[in-house]
Amino acid sequence: MTRPIWIKHAAQLVTLASDEKGPRTKEAMSDLGLIEDGSLWIEDGIIQAVGSTKELEKHYSERIHEAEIVDATNHLVTPGLVDPHTHVVYGGSREHEFEMRLQGATYMDIMNAGGGIHATTRMTREASEEELIEQTTCRLDSFLAHGVTTVEGKSGYGMNLETELKQLRVMKRLQEQHVIDIVPTFMGAHAVPPEYKGREDEIVDYLIHDMLPVVAEQKLAEFNDVFCEKGVYTPEQSERILEAGKRYGLIPKIHADEIEPYGGAELAAKIGAISAEHLLKASEEGIKAMAKSGTIACLLPATALYLREEAALGRKMIDEGVAVAISTDCNPGSSPTTSMPLVMNLACISMRLTPAEALTAATYNAACAINRQEQVGSLEVGKQADIVLWKTKSYQELQYLFGVNHVKSVWKKGVKVV
Amino acid sequence: MTRPIWIKHAAQLVTLASDEKGPRTKEAMSDLGLIEDGSLWIEDGIIQAVGSTKELEKHYSERIHEAEIVDATNHLVTPGLVDPHTHVVYGGSREHEFEMRLQGATYMDIMNAGGGIHATTRMTREASEEELIEQTTCRLDSFLAHGVTTVEGKSGYGMNLETELKQLRVMKRLQEQHVIDIVPTFMGAHAVPPEYKGREDEIVDYLIHDMLPVVAEQKLAEFNDVFCEKGVYTPEQSERILEAGKRYGLIPKIHADEIEPYGGAELAAKIGAISAEHLLKASEEGIKAMAKSGTIACLLPATALYLREEAALGRKMIDEGVAVAISTDCNPGSSPTTSMPLVMNLACISMRLTPAEALTAATYNAACAINRQEQVGSLEVGKQADIVLWKTKSYQELQYLFGVNHVKSVWKKGVKVV
Ligand SMILES: [Zn+2]
Ligand SMILES: [Zn+2]
Repeated sequence: MTRPIWIKHAAQLVTLASDEKGPRTKEAMSDLGLIEDGSLWIEDGIIQAVGSTKELEKHYSERIHEAEIVDATNHLVTPGLVDPHTHVVYGGSREHEFEMRLQGATYMDIMNAGGGIHATTRMTREASEEELIEQTTCRLDSFLAHGVTTVEGKSGYGMNLETELKQLRVMKRLQEQHVIDIVPTFMGAHAVPPEYKGREDEIVDYLIHDMLPVVAEQKLAEFNDVFCEKGVYTPEQSERILEAGKRYGLIPKIHADEIEPYGGAELAAKIGAISAEHLLKASEEGIKAMAKSGTIACLLPATALYLREEAALGRKMIDEGVAVAISTDCNPGSSPTTSMPLVMNLACISMRLTPAEALTAATYNAACAINRQEQVGSLEVGKQADIVLWKTKSYQELQYLFGVNHVKSVWKKGVKVV
Repeated sequence: MTRPIWIKHAAQLVTLASDEKGPRTKEAMSDLGLIEDGSLWIEDGIIQAVGSTKELEKHYSERIHEAEIVDATNHLVTPGLVDPHTHVVYGGSREHEFEMRLQGATYMDIMNAGGGIHATTRMTREASEEELIEQTTCRLDSFLAHGVTTVEGKSGYGMNLETELKQLRVMKRLQEQHVIDIVPTFMGAHAVPPEYKGREDEIVDYLIHDMLPVVAEQKLAEFNDVFCEKGVYTPEQSERILEAGKRYGLIPKIHADEIEPYGGAELAAKIGAISAEHLLKASEEGIKAMAKSGTIACLLPATALYLREEAALGRKMIDEGVAVAISTDCNPGSSPTTSMPLVMNLACISMRLTPAEALTAATYNAACAINRQEQVGSLEVGKQADIVLWKTKSYQELQYLFGVNHVKSVWKKGVKVV
């Protein structure tokens, strides 16, 4: 039996509680369910009560002596952050490419020097399952230190069955070993392997007939993601892959319109993808279609920064009624970061989300993007006690004092882990 | 008597040692004086020896039992970072303006609502010396946690003698109380107070005749800085103020060409300023003049990010022979951050500095910009033992894994402070 935990006197307790279900849009993205002098009672890893310190003090008056007390005076308390889009399982490192790129090398120069995604594929194929576990654990530790208690992870650095399964097994083992919850996505269609160049339809067939059934049978993934982009997979090929995944119960996601408008947002809406990712170049029609279908826009402003691209039109998407989530996109080529606090800051600075919208995008809407809104993403009775105590006094200050990791403490399922 | 400290087995020891004196330019900015399996011997707060672990092991063989040993295996060791441009002493907070701005308010809307620099001036005037000490201490603690062991600080939120002196006294007291070294700059000419609008020459006279002599007599500053920008101080007014400062032994600095090309870089070169700041819009001629005069460009990429401006042409400036330093510009209006690691990352990402150049810009060249290169900025025998041990294995990785504070430990004058 563990002692109850009573967190009290939070200057701001951001609950994100709401009677409405499903991802938050428009004004609902600004409604943080804020409680001043807020308080939480946690038992058995579950939130038992949420309210003002006065209310909980009264309600638990006869049990207060049992509880471990956390005084959050002058501090902000929020749900644990959720990162709904990462490529966190990979072998090797590509810091030398970063230098090449700064010295003027083009994407093609780097590819010709054996770099780019195919370098990570090679290093991930070569790495043992144990090595991948070890490297990924370091990254997950860093996520946790930055207030993230749930991450999505994608395969896609195998591009052969063996390595894709290895990446997914690594996630399964980490879900058991690591305190962070890791939600697995199969992304066999992350790139076209060089050996299939010009024969893209063959790799699509291979994905559909030889990979998807095995992934599904072994219950290694919940989502199925494709890189729908000119020179990678066409909207037609993407649709075939995602529809095939649906037949195995895998929920579709799409890397869409990152480099040019290519109909990715439209496709996401058409096939009922749970989310579309990147969307730097999404068309007007695509955005409207996503608003209508309820597809979540998962936006990645750290990637845009790192690649020196204009960030996605987050402000416009919210104004048009799209539910926005944000993510690190943690990966070795275009966003080698583990900081969701920075991503929130950038959502404000680069995409003009307000501090409240950025927090919703990094918690409740992020949870919706990976179908975990019943368990995490808000502080409500019955949900997992995944909680962050921040050194700032308000959620406004959390976004304003930018570039700094303001995490003070983190609880995962009611256990203090940072 | 304190025990010697022996830091050994650093995967990379960045010494930045060089026989050349003065700020580093061109290729010299890439020469980190790197020692693999590096080692430092520290005694009485001073670096006594620098070399490979093998060398120091041999040299100190009979005294090793005395030393406190720090094993830096697989880790990077560098000089403590130096932030050569901050407005760290200020009253109040302006996070509500951040929200206003994100919601579309213009600079003028904010000024009309009582915000902007005049709001900080009001709050700084109202704050007691003790309150300013307390607020600034929090910020300096955060700097230290991010690997910064020396900061410059500017007055300039008083715009009357009383408050300017109060800000400078706060820095003097913090220099005594806080482990960080704080180097004071007088910046009475930070803005034109509303009551002097249209009578700018009168405030210039007031600065020269009533403020500078008192600041100098009380030995409260080493540098004299002006905001030379259209609508603030003209190059002619700036020159008068800086030349007057010189007569009192104050070294000139200039906030130059931030908003439009205005001859600030040219003026900096002409009057022999130690550094010119911002330079987002510096002219071609201004850059060439600075290269010739040896004026350091102090670039502030976090400010550019926060204001959604294109960063300064750091790459071009280095290629043209300008010595580049970088800084947070920590201030409540345009760069509310204390993270020099993020500034280094942005120097690479936004200004195309290489990881080595960014590190030189944040250490040795930054020390030169505040005339502290004899004491700090490199790890050489006889210098202060201001040292950072990073969790990364290389300086390349430090810049590549961006947005994360990789500091593991910090020593200030040989004392472990983080
Ligand atoms: Zn991705
Ligand atoms: Zn400044």
